[in-house]
Amino acid sequence: MAGPIVLLTDFGLDDAYVGTMKGVILRINPRVSIVDLCHQVAPYGIAEGAWLLASSYPYFAPDAIFVAVVDPGVGSERRAIALETPRGTFVGPDNGLFGPIVGDFGARAPATGGRASLAGSPVEAVVLSDERYFLPRVSATFHGRDVFAPVAAHLSLGVPLAALGPPLVDLVVLPAPRPERRAGEILGHVLHVDRFGNAITDLTAADLQGLARPVIEAAGQRIVGLSHHYAERAGVLALLGSAGHLEIAVSGGSAATALGLRVGDPVIAREER
Amino acid sequence: MAGPIVLLTDFGLDDAYVGTMKGVILRINPRVSIVDLCHQVAPYGIAEGAWLLASSYPYFAPDAIFVAVVDPGVGSERRAIALETPRGTFVGPDNGLFGPIVGDFGARAPATGGRASLAGSPVEAVVLSDERYFLPRVSATFHGRDVFAPVAAHLSLGVPLAALGPPLVDLVVLPAPRPERRAGEILGHVLHVDRFGNAITDLTAADLQGLARPVIEAAGQRIVGLSHHYAERAGVLALLGSAGHLEIAVSGGSAATALGLRVGDPVIAREER
Amino acid sequence: MAGPIVLLTDFGLDDAYVGTMKGVILRINPRVSIVDLCHQVAPYGIAEGAWLLASSYPYFAPDAIFVAVVDPGVGSERRAIALETPRGTFVGPDNGLFGPIVGDFGARAPATGGRASLAGSPVEAVVLSDERYFLPRVSATFHGRDVFAPVAAHLSLGVPLAALGPPLVDLVVLPAPRPERRAGEILGHVLHVDRFGNAITDLTAADLQGLARPVIEAAGQRIVGLSHHYAERAGVLALLGSAGHLEIAVSGGSAATALGLRVGDPVIAREER
Repeated sequence: MAGPIVLLTDFGLDDAYVGTMKGVILRINPRVSIVDLCHQVAPYGIAEGAWLLASSYPYFAPDAIFVAVVDPGVGSERRAIALETPRGTFVGPDNGLFGPIVGDFGARAPATGGRASLAGSPVEAVVLSDERYFLPRVSATFHGRDVFAPVAAHLSLGVPLAALGPPLVDLVVLPAPRPERRAGEILGHVLHVDRFGNAITDLTAADLQGLARPVIEAAGQRIVGLSHHYAERAGVLALLGSAGHLEIAVSGGSAATALGLRVGDPVIAREER
Repeated sequence: MAGPIVLLTDFGLDDAYVGTMKGVILRINPRVSIVDLCHQVAPYGIAEGAWLLASSYPYFAPDAIFVAVVDPGVGSERRAIALETPRGTFVGPDNGLFGPIVGDFGARAPATGGRASLAGSPVEAVVLSDERYFLPRVSATFHGRDVFAPVAAHLSLGVPLAALGPPLVDLVVLPAPRPERRAGEILGHVLHVDRFGNAITDLTAADLQGLARPVIEAAGQRIVGLSHHYAERAGVLALLGSAGHLEIAVSGGSAATALGLRVGDPVIAREER
Repeated sequence: MAGPIVLLTDFGLDDAYVGTMKGVILRINPRVSIVDLCHQVAPYGIAEGAWLLASSYPYFAPDAIFVAVVDPGVGSERRAIALETPRGTFVGPDNGLFGPIVGDFGARAPATGGRASLAGSPVEAVVLSDERYFLPRVSATFHGRDVFAPVAAHLSLGVPLAALGPPLVDLVVLPAPRPERRAGEILGHVLHVDRFGNAITDLTAADLQGLARPVIEAAGQRIVGLSHHYAERAGVLALLGSAGHLEIAVSGGSAATALGLRVGDPVIAREER
């Protein structure tokens, strides 16, 4: 029994696009489990999709097959790819969606973006080109249905990765701001704002390790010390969240609303003075 | 192993209505797969539900069982029905939801709506009346839970269609504007606006076949030529989308927002002059 | 084959939190069915979650395992619990989410809230404490992923409830307004407003039993008589809905919008004079 097929898209839930992909998958493999990871990625939000995927795939069994479709370039020259890693298989467009994941396995690109070479990493990858594993008619605008869903279903039936097309040697990685260590402080950024209004940053436990008494600055607020959980104190607080990243939160409320925090905003950590 | 049970409703996801239907189904057939096709059909939006269903059912295996519940007349005299077609089984209210589907199999009604006779078509249909296949207590307001979900679950266990009730000879079809061929042009309409703001029309490839150099007019804009995919050029474009229908789109944006397009709006195709 | 694992949370669908919980569950039990009951409970809306759960669990098979995570106190001293009832198993925080359910089995607290003793009820319960059934690393902020999902998955594999931790003798129940019988009338309250704008109250068929010709008053409107279904007449109507509760509705429209009804608003039933 193969692992589940896990779907992440920017298709939303107001249309039948996601449901149609599931029909295609179950027609090929009626026994596979399908899991919705998230379909409310902002339209064309490749970086957001990449972050959601990277922070959740480690919780799935290694035989899970992830189909990620945030694909503004569908029908253009952008390549369709599949990757096999020690912690999961990934199918989707070559546009940066899988950058953080191959980074976890040592394949990195410059912070300004570019292509990451897979040489020396444990990741095997192919360009999807064998049309026997696609739907008989491939539209120019819906490869989620016509290419990625059927490829994932065939993989779940045991088709080997190498059968899908020629090897891929590098793949697109988006530019990503990284925490910046400056005199006496570390500058990070808001990566994602969740439903509760928690602002999740790119600062991790490792970034804060040197600080005996950390002070966090965000949106003009100064937060002294880290909390352990959301209900620990009233008002604005900072804690290391469930993905291991520093979050700005408001107990019982929304930090995003209270402080006006948005994706990309700076967050600074320093020693209390 | 029966095909999946596929759900389309206007129940939204803010309540537990859809989840409860799934509980009813799995209580009767714990092994069946359940797929969400769409639950965000606008409340009482029968035509929208019919369109979403018609454009996606061909992608499912023919043993799929579709349960469609957009049912403003629940509890009234409107009939509850089930249809077996060569491409899927359908369960729901007799209010027009299945009109486009029986049309695909030759059972049509006038463009002004009415009833479509199933005589001569390959579609077999019944009126749901045998209460052994309903929940023991049927409410007047939630037949999705009390009638349609249990009937679909029993069908997935192999109960024959004919056991569910007496034959149905015709069913309700909604009035539907159809593309209108006029002197030198074809007048179509916006059928659906998707999450990306793409305005999908009732004009198909067949409608545009005679045009060597098509020009599309929508919301006062004139679009020369058809694109192949969304990223092909900047700004407003027209293309044949994944359902085989003409779509008005904006690359990386929303045509609905940019042009103010809404369901029902006219879209004209003509030869470039 | 165990029953499904049924999820109710306030996580929404804009993040990957729910999908990640599913990954954890399927990693432990790849064969279990997972059902989404509702994830759009208002953030921190314990009472709303409790109501949605209580009104839907009876429709599932008794071997269903419900995981309910509306958990503003995650990481604090609030306990994590599991309950086995004759009609389903429940896993989640001890914060009131399960109050109406244990009430169904005779374990009640004062209307002002407090703790309900399980002594004498058929409900068996434990405090989750055996970390072998949790993820190896438990965060302070996401027990849905790290505690509740893995515990439910282990239960679905046959781990006995008693293995999970020491017995629980009472649990938290929220204060709940109850219908109030006054001279010649019964005062109830709006419990929930659904997607259609139906305002569902805490008045049940039993409350209205004594009324030969009921009149309902809500938001200054006087509704004479009960309708049977939504399409029965135009305008504002009252009926006994699918959960057996009195609802205020507008045929083809929204009672919440038309009358400005909100959760907590009073609704009065009396004899017509």
